[in-house]
Amino acid sequence: MERLSRELAFLLTLDRLKEVQRQSYTLAGRHENSAEHSWHVAVAAMLLSEHAKEPVNLLRVLEMLLIHDVVEIEAGDTYVYDEDARKKQEEKEKQAAEKLFAQLPEDQSRHWWELWQEFSAGTSPEARFARSLDRLLPVLLNVATEGRSWQEHGVRASQVLARNAEVAAGSPALWEVVQKLVAEAQARGFLASDGETQAPKG
Amino acid sequence: MERLSRELAFLLTLDRLKEVQRQSYTLAGRHENSAEHSWHVAVAAMLLSEHAKEPVNLLRVLEMLLIHDVVEIEAGDTYVYDEDARKKQEEKEKQAAEKLFAQLPEDQSRHWWELWQEFSAGTSPEARFARSLDRLLPVLLNVATEGRSWQEHGVRASQVLARNAEVAAGSPALWEVVQKLVAEAQARGFLASDGETQAPKG
Repeated sequence: MERLSRELAFLLTLDRLKEVQRQSYTLAGRHENSAEHSWHVAVAAMLLSEHAKEPVNLLRVLEMLLIHDVVEIEAGDTYVYDEDARKKQEEKEKQAAEKLFAQLPEDQSRHWWELWQEFSAGTSPEARFARSLDRLLPVLLNVATEGRSWQEHGVRASQVLARNAEVAAGSPALWEVVQKLVAEAQARGFLASDGETQAPKG
Repeated sequence: MERLSRELAFLLTLDRLKEVQRQSYTLAGRHENSAEHSWHVAVAAMLLSEHAKEPVNLLRVLEMLLIHDVVEIEAGDTYVYDEDARKKQEEKEKQAAEKLFAQLPEDQSRHWWELWQEFSAGTSPEARFARSLDRLLPVLLNVATEGRSWQEHGVRASQVLARNAEVAAGSPALWEVVQKLVAEAQARGFLASDGETQAPKG
């Protein structure tokens, strides 16, 4: 019962991920949280695994995606285009993982730690595919909301392409999708090209 | 590309699950939505699969839990203690599944349909364990929020035990947890026993 009690307490700790706000908007027009994002990206893996660059173990992909953001309970979310914050975030997230996963029984703690490190470092076909999906989803949502969070932060097409280039390592087919979406967003006028002046709105 | 386009369009349709409100409250005190619930219950499966009554294929459990509520995009959520609504809901959800899954390529449509039917009917060890978790989570959240949604709806201990008795079919250990939580909630005074008068607050 001791073991089960620890697992249930951890499950309640995880509830806090529902309150971590991301920069992306849902199609209904509110900020997305990291728990619902984690669900969305896991379902994306179910739908899109046939487009992975290498064959992947879907269970491993799902496990990584379900836990990839839980460190944000302690460390908060960092906007993908905020380069300064992202550098500091790495150490903060590592400390958060240590603190959080220590709440689990030892074997589970080790399993979660391995999943999280594998995802963070992109050291397997599963991790690279999972990371591709984690990049793809905000691009999809941005294009579907006419670039709302890109516009708020004055993000340019070259930044979107640079930050998402690693999609190619997990799925060349999805990288092609990202490139097409970026071109479409530029053509429709809600993603600035490098020459254009565009001040942040947010 | 036709196939990939359909998958991506479906992924955007699924975004609507983030706006389906449930009766449960998050620990932060707002109504939970069905997308974040789906994430929470999938993570629960990762943590608690060792307590399943029979050995389970975790991938199958995760796939079922990730999609078990997507029909609510069309059919809405039904409160677990609203018996009348639940009877009508069954047919509505079946129609919703047909409509939704038809948007997918044929093989995927069949896979999702099978997962959803298996979960709904509880016809495998995986489905029974997944259903146990889907029952456990609202009980956990209710106890952690001092029975907030139970109190709003005037739900009694006997109803909680009756509606959640099927937890035992998926996990005797978790059924024991539910029984203890119900006893604790009664002792602490936020779940009414049958003799007591308690009008709905909500």
